[in-house]
Amino acid sequence: MTGRPKPAVCVLGTGLIGGSVLRAAAAAGYQAWGYNRSEAGAKAARADGYDVISDSAEALGRAAEKDALIVVGVPMPALSAVLSDIRTFAPDCVLTDVVSVKAPVAEVVHRHELGRHFVGGHPMAGTSESGWAASTPDLFQGAAWALSVDEGVHADPWRRVARLALDCGAVVVPVLDAEHDRAVARISHLPHVLAEALAVAGAAGGNLALGLAAGSFRDGTRVAATAPDLVRAICEPNAAALLEVLEDTLRVLGDARDTLRDNGSIVDLVEAGHAARVDYEDNRRWAITDVRPGDHDWLARLAEAGRRGGVIEALD
Amino acid sequence: MTGRPKPAVCVLGTGLIGGSVLRAAAAAGYQAWGYNRSEAGAKAARADGYDVISDSAEALGRAAEKDALIVVGVPMPALSAVLSDIRTFAPDCVLTDVVSVKAPVAEVVHRHELGRHFVGGHPMAGTSESGWAASTPDLFQGAAWALSVDEGVHADPWRRVARLALDCGAVVVPVLDAEHDRAVARISHLPHVLAEALAVAGAAGGNLALGLAAGSFRDGTRVAATAPDLVRAICEPNAAALLEVLEDTLRVLGDARDTLRDNGSIVDLVEAGHAARVDYEDNRRWAITDVRPGDHDWLARLAEAGRRGGVIEALD
Repeated sequence: MTGRPKPAVCVLGTGLIGGSVLRAAAAAGYQAWGYNRSEAGAKAARADGYDVISDSAEALGRAAEKDALIVVGVPMPALSAVLSDIRTFAPDCVLTDVVSVKAPVAEVVHRHELGRHFVGGHPMAGTSESGWAASTPDLFQGAAWALSVDEGVHADPWRRVARLALDCGAVVVPVLDAEHDRAVARISHLPHVLAEALAVAGAAGGNLALGLAAGSFRDGTRVAATAPDLVRAICEPNAAALLEVLEDTLRVLGDARDTLRDNGSIVDLVEAGHAARVDYEDNRRWAITDVRPGDHDWLARLAEAGRRGGVIEALD
Repeated sequence: MTGRPKPAVCVLGTGLIGGSVLRAAAAAGYQAWGYNRSEAGAKAARADGYDVISDSAEALGRAAEKDALIVVGVPMPALSAVLSDIRTFAPDCVLTDVVSVKAPVAEVVHRHELGRHFVGGHPMAGTSESGWAASTPDLFQGAAWALSVDEGVHADPWRRVARLALDCGAVVVPVLDAEHDRAVARISHLPHVLAEALAVAGAAGGNLALGLAAGSFRDGTRVAATAPDLVRAICEPNAAALLEVLEDTLRVLGDARDTLRDNGSIVDLVEAGHAARVDYEDNRRWAITDVRPGDHDWLARLAEAGRRGGVIEALD
């Protein structure tokens, strides 16, 4: 929080993530409003006291008028339509998104010639629920919020988007789009794929298996409760990176199958998996304090710091 | 709880599960004591006010004297040594176990000629922690506790073991050893294998991937935090059943890889996984009330009821 007046924020798509951005921004003192395609969703938000309408021209007209930061919170399949409206009604606003994949979003944004004020983003938070009803103002507290530092990103919009992420309670992870997409394939999209496969294996065991299931199955299949269309909208745009890590994982599991069959042992997998989980538990963020947006070579330096686990916890 | 005097219980191996049985039995009013191979573990239990010693001859001598129910709580690799001691010092006591696999345990028990008073058991509860320090008296509250109804099991010992499970707060799932082992391969051992593989995939993404990891990765890898030796002791004795479900899962994941590569889609996996998770969430236990241990054909009838999700919630 700074002493200067808060900018305006216009959130397009008020589902779990977009809705939580709207709530968090409002809670942080932003002038915040939103657009939601379904009037039922908009109405639910208004019933909770938020300014959400189902007329995108009106929401974007206000954004242009107030020089709002626009946050695109629709899933990938709806992106292009929303960008067309932005191009029509608010082409000069600073623009970010909260979609789960970054390179494909940047490509569509540039196709709509909206790249100049654009900074791709991805807050790493969620639940297996979806929709406005699941949104909360504190969803991003302590979360990592990835922000693109690809070539061509400008310092002014980057600063504004980073400030919103910080004001929502997150820390900012600077990352190149392609590296982001490969990373989330590992820690977000593969978990979905494995959870679905585990659920299938459990249910194939019928009432007996499901009745005996305890914590490991419950936690391992949690994200399989996510609506199928949403899982597809999250994973499929990242097909190339997901394919690569899925191939790796098939190899790892195939090796375990071989040693289990041949020697009755899964020692290699279990020891590697345990060491990896310990790496995860021991992994610590560290604060990037020596690079500011706009500094000489700031994009490359932030990308390099983010790659080593650095995060931005504050802006001047 | 009934009006009659509680039987004595002797727990061999006071780690997470055995220790929790000891605590739960004591809390339910049983005369309960234990043996733990490591004196340090026994001492920790004594420091908490429990009667645990590291001399198995003495613990088992008391079991024979007081006609105690013996609960074997050691991992599979330590089973044979413990059974030798039981054969020497307390061969006529009713005997159960809490090991994660049933057919291999029954085989070793019969090899030690201890089958006559034996009822295999498996409480479906745990955490990624281990040892006495992780044990709690309420670990089994509401849990399913599998009890063997294989041919040759006698009604009197079965009733005693079932009563202990109920007194520990669990419900009893009657199950054939082979069916138990196939079921837990799906809902307990495969979750371990997939969690290890997911952890490996995440850590291969380095600090960036681990720093971006959120709920789906954390929950999906939780059980990979379990000590590697314990995971192996849980999974490897069930190699045949685990191999079968791992093969199935490799096929399911391989199909998803193919459709992702060829059509950019994982629709089949995601829809099947979601439906399976819904099956799990909707799965309800129902109370078996029309079969009592010792009734005509009770073993087969209980096995059939357990297979359909039935549980025993009370004994007369």
